[in-house]
Amino acid sequence: MSLAEILAQPSHWLTAQEQHPIVLSTRVRLARNLADRPFPPALTAEKTEQTEAEIAAVLETTKIDGQCLRYLPLRDISDMEKMVLVEKHLISPALAALGAGRGVALSPEHRLAVMVNEEDHIRLQVISPGNSLQEAFRLADQLDDALESRLDFAFRERYGYLTACPTNVGTGMRVSTMMHLPALVMTKQMQQVLSALSPLGLAIRGLYGEGSKAWGNIFQISNQVTLGKSEEDTLVNIEAVTEQVCELENNARQIMLAGRRALEDRVWRARGLLSHARILPVEEAFHLVSEDRLGVEAGLLPGTRETFAALVLNLLPAGLRYRHGGEMTEDQLNAARADYLRAAAVGS
Amino acid sequence: MSLAEILAQPSHWLTAQEQHPIVLSTRVRLARNLADRPFPPALTAEKTEQTEAEIAAVLETTKIDGQCLRYLPLRDISDMEKMVLVEKHLISPALAALGAGRGVALSPEHRLAVMVNEEDHIRLQVISPGNSLQEAFRLADQLDDALESRLDFAFRERYGYLTACPTNVGTGMRVSTMMHLPALVMTKQMQQVLSALSPLGLAIRGLYGEGSKAWGNIFQISNQVTLGKSEEDTLVNIEAVTEQVCELENNARQIMLAGRRALEDRVWRARGLLSHARILPVEEAFHLVSEDRLGVEAGLLPGTRETFAALVLNLLPAGLRYRHGGEMTEDQLNAARADYLRAAAVGS
Repeated sequence: MSLAEILAQPSHWLTAQEQHPIVLSTRVRLARNLADRPFPPALTAEKTEQTEAEIAAVLETTKIDGQCLRYLPLRDISDMEKMVLVEKHLISPALAALGAGRGVALSPEHRLAVMVNEEDHIRLQVISPGNSLQEAFRLADQLDDALESRLDFAFRERYGYLTACPTNVGTGMRVSTMMHLPALVMTKQMQQVLSALSPLGLAIRGLYGEGSKAWGNIFQISNQVTLGKSEEDTLVNIEAVTEQVCELENNARQIMLAGRRALEDRVWRARGLLSHARILPVEEAFHLVSEDRLGVEAGLLPGTRETFAALVLNLLPAGLRYRHGGEMTEDQLNAARADYLRAAAVGS
Repeated sequence: MSLAEILAQPSHWLTAQEQHPIVLSTRVRLARNLADRPFPPALTAEKTEQTEAEIAAVLETTKIDGQCLRYLPLRDISDMEKMVLVEKHLISPALAALGAGRGVALSPEHRLAVMVNEEDHIRLQVISPGNSLQEAFRLADQLDDALESRLDFAFRERYGYLTACPTNVGTGMRVSTMMHLPALVMTKQMQQVLSALSPLGLAIRGLYGEGSKAWGNIFQISNQVTLGKSEEDTLVNIEAVTEQVCELENNARQIMLAGRRALEDRVWRARGLLSHARILPVEEAFHLVSEDRLGVEAGLLPGTRETFAALVLNLLPAGLRYRHGGEMTEDQLNAARADYLRAAAVGS
């Protein structure tokens, strides 16, 4: 399966049946390193490529839950393709900026993604649809076990898994849920939610991690602590908080529905602009798609839950350029985004 | 024909075939007073009613171009109906505020309207569709001649017709064209146009005269001088200026069309909001309808020229309350306006 074919596939979490009204997706990421050598930042070029070859060989012969992995060396990936992989959350911006001796292994529909020689030798992730932390962890854990049976991971009884950055030592696990919280934003309760999460060792961020804006009112909640807390405790903690935030969001939606006309006006205006505008900057497009989904979820607009996440990921610049097949100016991107949304909205 | 029936009729200038891309309507107004008595502000209540009766009797038996006039005493008109007449430009706000002894005579489809005992004993007006000053003047002149043959008008060889306010002495004529100038507004050229008109003895105002805002980018150009200038000179002057402003507006539209995508975006967004919004404040509604008409005129939107003016006049509060049949809050008005526009936009 070529990279082009892999990129052409929609991600499993976008197309799966198990969609949730608020939680768009769930992600589990594990950081692992080989025991017998320095972390990637301290490896020579030669040792980096040797490490890549060792890990890639294992990845390409590993099968999890019936899914095979295809290893793609970074040197075979164009800059445009790298940006598409970043937008799809399949590689990190940090990996995209690195050179030879790095790469990513992907399974069909992008359920599994394993970065090789980013900050750690191995960073494996599972993205699954909706609110499915246990399921995502089960898969990640299987992959981890499969790799550990053939590779010698750096592990100390006292600390757990060793990682390049001390913030990952221990479980090496980062778990996050991506949530659509328009009503909490509209009713100006996000600040309150943020301050409640931070003492729990949790972070809340925008769609593209630290420092990114919450375009489309999409937020990621993730754990900050990897040391001194078991995987199970972390999962339970994130699950409980995700449920609580969902409840707050649902309450905020109920409050907004009390002013029914005003909410109808908001969501129908968004639908009207999505189906009529000829120029749509990315931030406005996210905002409108967010309002539209809120309308669908609140039963005020016709449409289906499925469209939202799929739309959102198709609004980003790299994806638009990739589908266009070449460089595009900002104006061309804004026009193409509007054209895409109009065509997508026809059926709704 | 009852007042309710008269109000239910659409105005001739809105429905006539002779629509113009920029000039919505043309108005000629003549101020006349009876020779043998003081102007209305100086009349006793008894004399006011007597004057009303004399003039009403003449009006109700006058026929111009096959059109009869129906006289409606102000005391028989409800406050809500008065506001509707003001919105339709059939009486002035000043008349609406006065009491017994006043009234208005209307012909079918509101082509002729004669206010009795406003500031002058008689103020007759003709509104005609599009750019039709000569036609409007011809009708007004016929009505004036018909009335003068049966009433003794205050007239001095040296001054012309005498009027309560010195700004009307002479011809007693005020001529105006109502124009839709969105491109001049968008390209920020209106200030320039305004300063060019003032030395010509012309005024430019919003939809509802002095001090009113130019909602929907609708402007009225009218003469300020009635003394020492013949009717024909005044007509020619306004006609020439109207043509020039049309040319400027057309040039501005051509310039905007050069940035085709941006203009398409503007007008399609307006169409999208008009056909989807659930709450529309009056000023926003005017703005959107104005953009929509610009799109139709520029060939960017499907639709017909006719709808615009008709829509505009149906967005105003008194008309909405009148059709609703009673008092409405601001919220109810904004909701009813959006509902009306959505229904009206279905066919477009």
